[in-house]
Amino acid sequence: MTEHDDSFSDYLVRPDASDNRLSCEVQGIDHNGTAVTTRVVTEKPLTLYLNRQEIVTMMTIGDHPQLLAAGYLVNQNMLRRDDRITAIDYDDDLGVVVVRTERETNYETKLQKKVRTSGCAQGTVFGDVMENFDDITLSADARLKTSWLYALTRKINTTPSLYLEAGAIHGCVLCSKDRPLVYMEDVGRHNAVDKIAGWMLLNNVPPDDKIFYTTGRLTSEMVIKTVLMGIPILVSRSGFTAWGVELAKQSGLTLIGRARGRRFIALAGHDRIIFDAPDTGSVDENNTDRKSASHEAAE
Amino acid sequence: MTEHDDSFSDYLVRPDASDNRLSCEVQGIDHNGTAVTTRVVTEKPLTLYLNRQEIVTMMTIGDHPQLLAAGYLVNQNMLRRDDRITAIDYDDDLGVVVVRTERETNYETKLQKKVRTSGCAQGTVFGDVMENFDDITLSADARLKTSWLYALTRKINTTPSLYLEAGAIHGCVLCSKDRPLVYMEDVGRHNAVDKIAGWMLLNNVPPDDKIFYTTGRLTSEMVIKTVLMGIPILVSRSGFTAWGVELAKQSGLTLIGRARGRRFIALAGHDRIIFDAPDTGSVDENNTDRKSASHEAAE
Repeated sequence: MTEHDDSFSDYLVRPDASDNRLSCEVQGIDHNGTAVTTRVVTEKPLTLYLNRQEIVTMMTIGDHPQLLAAGYLVNQNMLRRDDRITAIDYDDDLGVVVVRTERETNYETKLQKKVRTSGCAQGTVFGDVMENFDDITLSADARLKTSWLYALTRKINTTPSLYLEAGAIHGCVLCSKDRPLVYMEDVGRHNAVDKIAGWMLLNNVPPDDKIFYTTGRLTSEMVIKTVLMGIPILVSRSGFTAWGVELAKQSGLTLIGRARGRRFIALAGHDRIIFDAPDTGSVDENNTDRKSASHEAAE
Repeated sequence: MTEHDDSFSDYLVRPDASDNRLSCEVQGIDHNGTAVTTRVVTEKPLTLYLNRQEIVTMMTIGDHPQLLAAGYLVNQNMLRRDDRITAIDYDDDLGVVVVRTERETNYETKLQKKVRTSGCAQGTVFGDVMENFDDITLSADARLKTSWLYALTRKINTTPSLYLEAGAIHGCVLCSKDRPLVYMEDVGRHNAVDKIAGWMLLNNVPPDDKIFYTTGRLTSEMVIKTVLMGIPILVSRSGFTAWGVELAKQSGLTLIGRARGRRFIALAGHDRIIFDAPDTGSVDENNTDRKSASHEAAE
């Protein structure tokens, strides 16, 4: 197990599958009618305030509420990069997290105005998020070696996680070269992404040389979030949607999907890919595929 | 192929994987750097009005906009069962669908009030939806035979679909005994569910004897929607969240997850299950598992 321990020590943040607040045991029966005990992930409401303004109630597994709060606000364009956060207060009993900024934001006024015109924040938030999308230029110097990609997916798939413990959860991993740095999980993929965005914001981590890995599909929303975070490379073991591909092309994002074993497909920005991994043939590939197929997908 | 053709003729509605508006070809490169062409599903915005009130903009593959509109409103508790729909107008160019009711609904007033208190429609809608949850009694007479379950999953997994064609899409199927009736797909699982709710509403289909199958996880939201639709049995090939299980127990819903091959786990309401399928051993199970594992999951 020495090899594995070495890999895991690379992480700055990784899932704590043994935390009993994040998953719990439930009783049921299996296909033979036999009583079984199994683990399932928790989900509980967390209400987010920006200063005095209530913003949203999220369903989350509940770890890293401060990172989730900061990341949500920055990914929704409610917090500018130059806004200084003075405090993030979390109350576990109430399920409330409050992000306080030095300068009062204009989001309260903005939200009310938008809600009136579009009727629902789902559309509103989306419109607001897109405001910055076209202005972002992703790093042209960033590269992805296929040897890094294969090392990353192997490390991520074998890292102890709630996914391996209880299934039915999404994972996102911030990586640098062949090293996974921050691995976040949550019932909603949005939350896993936002927790990473929060970690990057609070730790002043530059996005230019990073690779973002997700278990989820490469939809328009996922592409938009990655671009707004300034990360030039997005990898998933899942598939694509047409608008996700279109937005990746527009923004110059490297978009890699269906990354399983040693296979993948790149549908945008493939000039950043360096094909340095040796071709090890089909035996290795089959082994890896069988491994991933044995886990339940977080669908 | 006669057997398969017979199965598919059971459907009242099923995916049209050949519809070029629902998926499209894109060019990319694979893991060898070789140019490839692959299919990806489309997603486009659809803005929903209830009479004169703009409600929401949804990202959808775009089939069955009228069913999606009606189902969204009924599942969000914005349309009461006794509201009479006088027309559903869809404009393809504008991406707008308008549901018109005989009596003006009170939703406009309600929405504005709620938005002011909770700040964002995500939390608001949730609160509104839960209003009815505790009042619903699901059919105590409904049964699920394991032979039906195995027949259903086999039929559903082999039905031509956008999932088999392009991947990265969720599917929901309304079933009766061992017969899949209505199979809807969409980029968002919510939309697939809502299209089935719309179909049931517009066709006056009783829910008591139905079984609901989904490719997605059994979260609180999925359980709530199924209960509000009055369907007593919910099956998924994916896993559970703790609050999903808790709500299923509260409402008396039969909750079956991780249904793959001949395996499954029931975590609530298992008194409705009849174990009538013969034990065919591990050979058959392995065959079925290998088949499903060869498809990309809609994660």
